[in-house]
Amino acid sequence: MISDKMSGLVKNSSAIRAMFEEGKIMAAKYGKENVYDFSLGNPSIVPPKEVKQAIFDVLNEEPEMFVHGYMSNAGYDDVRKTVAEYTNKQHGTNFSEKNIVMTVGAAGGLNIALKAVVNPGEEVVVIAPYFGEYDNYISNVDGVEVVISPDTERFSINFDELEQKISAKTRALIINSPNNPTGAVYTEDDIKRLASILEKKQKEFGSVIFLIADEPYRELVFDGIKVPYLTKYYKNTFVGYSFSKSLSLPGERIGYLVIPSEMEDFDAVVGAVSVANRIMGFVNAPSLMQRVIARVIGMTSDISVYEENKNILYKALTEYGFDCVEPKGTFYMFPKSLIPDDKAFCAAAKEFRLILVPGSTFGCPGHFRMAYCVDKQTVLNSLPSFKALAEKFK
Amino acid sequence: MISDKMSGLVKNSSAIRAMFEEGKIMAAKYGKENVYDFSLGNPSIVPPKEVKQAIFDVLNEEPEMFVHGYMSNAGYDDVRKTVAEYTNKQHGTNFSEKNIVMTVGAAGGLNIALKAVVNPGEEVVVIAPYFGEYDNYISNVDGVEVVISPDTERFSINFDELEQKISAKTRALIINSPNNPTGAVYTEDDIKRLASILEKKQKEFGSVIFLIADEPYRELVFDGIKVPYLTKYYKNTFVGYSFSKSLSLPGERIGYLVIPSEMEDFDAVVGAVSVANRIMGFVNAPSLMQRVIARVIGMTSDISVYEENKNILYKALTEYGFDCVEPKGTFYMFPKSLIPDDKAFCAAAKEFRLILVPGSTFGCPGHFRMAYCVDKQTVLNSLPSFKALAEKFK
Repeated sequence: MISDKMSGLVKNSSAIRAMFEEGKIMAAKYGKENVYDFSLGNPSIVPPKEVKQAIFDVLNEEPEMFVHGYMSNAGYDDVRKTVAEYTNKQHGTNFSEKNIVMTVGAAGGLNIALKAVVNPGEEVVVIAPYFGEYDNYISNVDGVEVVISPDTERFSINFDELEQKISAKTRALIINSPNNPTGAVYTEDDIKRLASILEKKQKEFGSVIFLIADEPYRELVFDGIKVPYLTKYYKNTFVGYSFSKSLSLPGERIGYLVIPSEMEDFDAVVGAVSVANRIMGFVNAPSLMQRVIARVIGMTSDISVYEENKNILYKALTEYGFDCVEPKGTFYMFPKSLIPDDKAFCAAAKEFRLILVPGSTFGCPGHFRMAYCVDKQTVLNSLPSFKALAEKFK
Repeated sequence: MISDKMSGLVKNSSAIRAMFEEGKIMAAKYGKENVYDFSLGNPSIVPPKEVKQAIFDVLNEEPEMFVHGYMSNAGYDDVRKTVAEYTNKQHGTNFSEKNIVMTVGAAGGLNIALKAVVNPGEEVVVIAPYFGEYDNYISNVDGVEVVISPDTERFSINFDELEQKISAKTRALIINSPNNPTGAVYTEDDIKRLASILEKKQKEFGSVIFLIADEPYRELVFDGIKVPYLTKYYKNTFVGYSFSKSLSLPGERIGYLVIPSEMEDFDAVVGAVSVANRIMGFVNAPSLMQRVIARVIGMTSDISVYEENKNILYKALTEYGFDCVEPKGTFYMFPKSLIPDDKAFCAAAKEFRLILVPGSTFGCPGHFRMAYCVDKQTVLNSLPSFKALAEKFK
């Protein structure tokens, strides 16, 4: 009785749920501390204490009809201004509140950007490996997904294939750096090359190609490396941001979309994005949380924990014989599975009480994803299991 | 450069924005207190003080990783259980947490219900006059909207036309009682008649027709009248609820969807709704607000204010010669315009500093909507303007 589009999705979702259920059964059998669950990208560290204080302050200092009421679908003007000014300070950009639309997380932002610009049948390019939800977001607007196969050398972009696959029907390209599932961060050279390809193709086809940057992991980078700010390299760029990871607030659904004034047909696009926010049922980003993030902008949880976990795991796994591109950010790594069949490999890992996600879930078989947003002790305790797993397949 | 679907919407939205801008200009010219703005359905009364206390209590008593973290896409189990038990107590239903999905307001709930069950090209019936956003929600899933013309006698349902227009392609029917824009509340007899038509048509076509009840105004009823609980009359009913109006929290985007166990293919529908919540970009209803509403369930703002405003306006306007079906709930009324052209009428009302919305916006020309969620003094001050407006068209 459910729609055809949803039938397949529900089946797939049940498979993931079955995996969680199995994890729970394993935890009951062996004890929770003896099961090493690297399956979920759920922040493992508390929000900074300033978040709680900011909530109290908003409620004590601001009128409640204002705090809990409707505002423009794009969000509170003053919150948007605060976000714009912070971004300008960080990245040397020149945004005002007009360039910011507050969204229900990055997922809300990506959906309204796609709704605003994609017509049914138009193509949206994604770079494998990629976050599987992009399939659904593109399907929501009846777009046609075009997948660029992985650059398994360093998990950047397979530029030659990208150049071949961009067509007159290409309307948008979604990129995600720092990347889920690989932890890769595109270099400035990568971004320049990408921008020049897009410029060239726009000229060739007389089209507009929107770059949609999904950036919930922007702050989660290691060794102090810089993540280039994309609007500075390519004007038709949407940046989708979320506070889910930087402030450990994934349940609150708070993020924003940046739309540079230089974007083609800027006024119409901003209008379309705001209307899309309304008609897709979001209406506006949650109001209290908008007011809170304006007070804590620029703060983060103690994200150094993720880098520590990465260092332990990367060192150990490469010692044990795993082949892995070292992550430059996020809380994911994406090693090669020790046999070509990544699903069989992840199934075998369960014998060692390791819960890993097959790379084929992300359009990149022969690998597996580990989400190391878990506590350090779990990471340390898991190492003998990884060693035993490696020995099994030697 | 924006998608074709969005182009018309942005134009339409600009027209509404122009109306607000004009209101602002009028306020600047005549003084805010001399402009009577009945255009917006934004609650005018503060949330109960228990809401603020509940936010403090949640933050002080519950672990922050839990309060701000991801939970199941359907919402926290304990919150869903609380909602189910409250509903059972109020309406003699028999729900458990399995029957409740927490949503991003009622707008989020309606969108995921439609996404779950409607295939492209299938028909969704709406009853004029109706909330204009339904057009967009139906368009989001590529459904075909079928409008039943108004019963202007009492703003119930034009049952004969409904019977004629339900076809083999009818997949869903959206109803909204208490109703925006009329303030009508369907009686138990109305609901029984509706249910029997739907049952008959399901049998005739061998189909399943879902009833989607949009109920953000359930508590806003006058004279203590009862609003029938629809799942008790027709099993294939979704109830979409929002706390926006009852608790004056429209900006927080918090509501829920009720899916009775008796619904055809219940497990698949619940699964589809949860997955739709995820893939449409909502992911889950805002987490802190879920936890808050569990603590204040059953409370409301001081909604008696709306009944007082209704009484003043209904008495005065009928005295002045307006023809109006007396509202039984909400904070709207929907009188006949004094000339057939409702747009010209609302334009003329501006001379008297009255901001009214043409009925044609709701699929019912020859009427206008007044949102009397304004303070009582504004209502009282507006009366001479209504009197003068009536005299102009006598």
